[in-house]
Amino acid sequence: MSSHPFADTPDPPYVAVIFTSVRTPGDNGYAVMAASMAELAREQPGFLGIESAREDVGITVSYWTDQTAAQGWKRVAAHLVAQRRGRDVWYDDYRVRIATVERDYGRDSSPLDPG
Amino acid sequence: MSSHPFADTPDPPYVAVIFTSVRTPGDNGYAVMAASMAELAREQPGFLGIESAREDVGITVSYWTDQTAAQGWKRVAAHLVAQRRGRDVWYDDYRVRIATVERDYGRDSSPLDPG
Repeated sequence: MSSHPFADTPDPPYVAVIFTSVRTPGDNGYAVMAASMAELAREQPGFLGIESAREDVGITVSYWTDQTAAQGWKRVAAHLVAQRRGRDVWYDDYRVRIATVERDYGRDSSPLDPG
Repeated sequence: MSSHPFADTPDPPYVAVIFTSVRTPGDNGYAVMAASMAELAREQPGFLGIESAREDVGITVSYWTDQTAAQGWKRVAAHLVAQRRGRDVWYDDYRVRIATVERDYGRDSSPLDPG
């Protein structure tokens, strides 16, 4: 496990859930929710890792073993947000994209490798 | 086109290139490169949009019509970085993941919709 904040994903294929959001002004319990959401993700079956950053837009990519695991997380996350009536309070707008990662590489492999 | 910084992607399938990176200290020409890289991406065939944020980790997701367009961009980006000998100067480490987006939804569609 590297000390870098990269998800420690296996060889593809695996699933990425790309959550892009614009926040409303003010915290309104968001920071606590975001921390517990990340903790909760780690406990889900099929969780592989999570990467997150926010500037004008927030991007959180969570990685899952397969579509079933990603769907399970989607239900848990939607339930948690609904419980706290948070969707309209926290997010001005958002997008969720569910994708299958077919190839990946890092610094130590050539960026021109086909794999 | 929304005023939000979301990529204006069409209905799936389309391709996401998820670039996650940790920067080295100092700018070393990075800001100029990043701006011209984003401009260059917009000019490529098959470009759909780009979303970007950086905190401890930087995440840039660019969206492409298909794998061929994503591969074309990969070659252009690698060439640009190589020209400027930037890879080791700018990035302490990075990951690139190429994924096919199969489903997406936004605020106005129920997060429990299967599509």
